[in-house]
Amino acid sequence: MTRILGIDPGSRFTGYGLIDQVGQKCRFVACGTIATQGDDMAARLGQIFGQLTEVVSAHSPVEVGIEKVFLARNADSALKLGQARGAAIAAVVQTGLPVFEYSARQVKQALVGTGGAEKHQVAQMVCYLLGLEKAPQADAADALGIAICHAHMRVSLARMAGASAIRRRRIR
Amino acid sequence: MTRILGIDPGSRFTGYGLIDQVGQKCRFVACGTIATQGDDMAARLGQIFGQLTEVVSAHSPVEVGIEKVFLARNADSALKLGQARGAAIAAVVQTGLPVFEYSARQVKQALVGTGGAEKHQVAQMVCYLLGLEKAPQADAADALGIAICHAHMRVSLARMAGASAIRRRRIR
Repeated sequence: MTRILGIDPGSRFTGYGLIDQVGQKCRFVACGTIATQGDDMAARLGQIFGQLTEVVSAHSPVEVGIEKVFLARNADSALKLGQARGAAIAAVVQTGLPVFEYSARQVKQALVGTGGAEKHQVAQMVCYLLGLEKAPQADAADALGIAICHAHMRVSLARMAGASAIRRRRIR
Repeated sequence: MTRILGIDPGSRFTGYGLIDQVGQKCRFVACGTIATQGDDMAARLGQIFGQLTEVVSAHSPVEVGIEKVFLARNADSALKLGQARGAAIAAVVQTGLPVFEYSARQVKQALVGTGGAEKHQVAQMVCYLLGLEKAPQADAADALGIAICHAHMRVSLARMAGASAIRRRRIR
C-alpha cells in the first residue's frame, strides 16, 4: 500500500487529496481545500504551509504529486501561483517526501484517457475511481486527480525500470 | 536594539543579510548567499526553506524585509521567482516573524536617496553604512540593503503612528 498526497496549489485556494494505492486500485483517504484568509500575502503563504504541514503529519503520505504549470496567464498571476507552489512544496519537502510534477494534460490523459478532456470529466472520473457519491470541491477534486495520476504513473515507471533492468541483464 | 533579516530571493541564488538597528544606526551582523544545487526544483526550494530556517534559528531576527516584485520579465521567470519567494516566506512566517515588502525603488530611495540609483551604488552605500571593508556577494549585499531599508522605514512608520496618535488625541 502506498499513500499518495496530491496538491493543486493556488494563492486563494489550495486543494489537497490523499489516496491509498493498493495493487492496481486507489482508495479514497481524505481531501480538502485550504482557503487562505486576509489580504496579507505572507500570512496567506503561512496558512498554506502550516495547513499542509498538518495534513502531512495527520495522514503520513509517502509520495507527493503536484500540478506542473506550463503557461500562466501573465507574469503577475505566475508570481502569485509560484509563491503558493513554493510554500506548498516547502511544506512537503521539509519532511523529506519526494515530489512529482504532472501537467494538467497528463492528469486528464491518466484519468479520462485524453489530454483534451474537460475539467468536469476529470472530477467525474475521480468520483468513479474512488467510489465517491458526491463530487468534492473543485480544487480538492483536482488534487485527488493528481494523486490518482501519480498512482498510475508510478506503476508504469516501476514497470519501465523493471523492463530496462531485464534488458540490461540480457545485454550482459 | 532590533535585529532585522533582509531577504533577496531567487531560484538559483537567495541572498540574506542581518543587521541590528540601534537608535538611528545599523550594525552588520551577518550575510550570505544560498546557492541552490541540482536540477530538481522541489529539492532547490527545500534548500532555500531549510537554510533560511537555520539562519532564523541561529540569529533570531524579530522583523523581516523582502524584495517586492512588480514586474517579472515573463510568466516563466515570474513562476520560478514566485516559488523561491514562497519557500523563503514560508520559512520565516512559520516562526511567527512579521514580513515587510519593499520594491527595488524603495530600497534605492532609502539607501542612495533616489529611486533611479544603480545597483552598485546601493552596494557601496551598504558597505558605507555598515562599515564593511569589502562588498559582500551581490545577492547578500541586496539583502543587507533591504534590511537597512526596513530599518529606515520602521522608524518613519513609528513616527507616523506617533504623529497620528497625537493628532487623534488633539482631535478629541
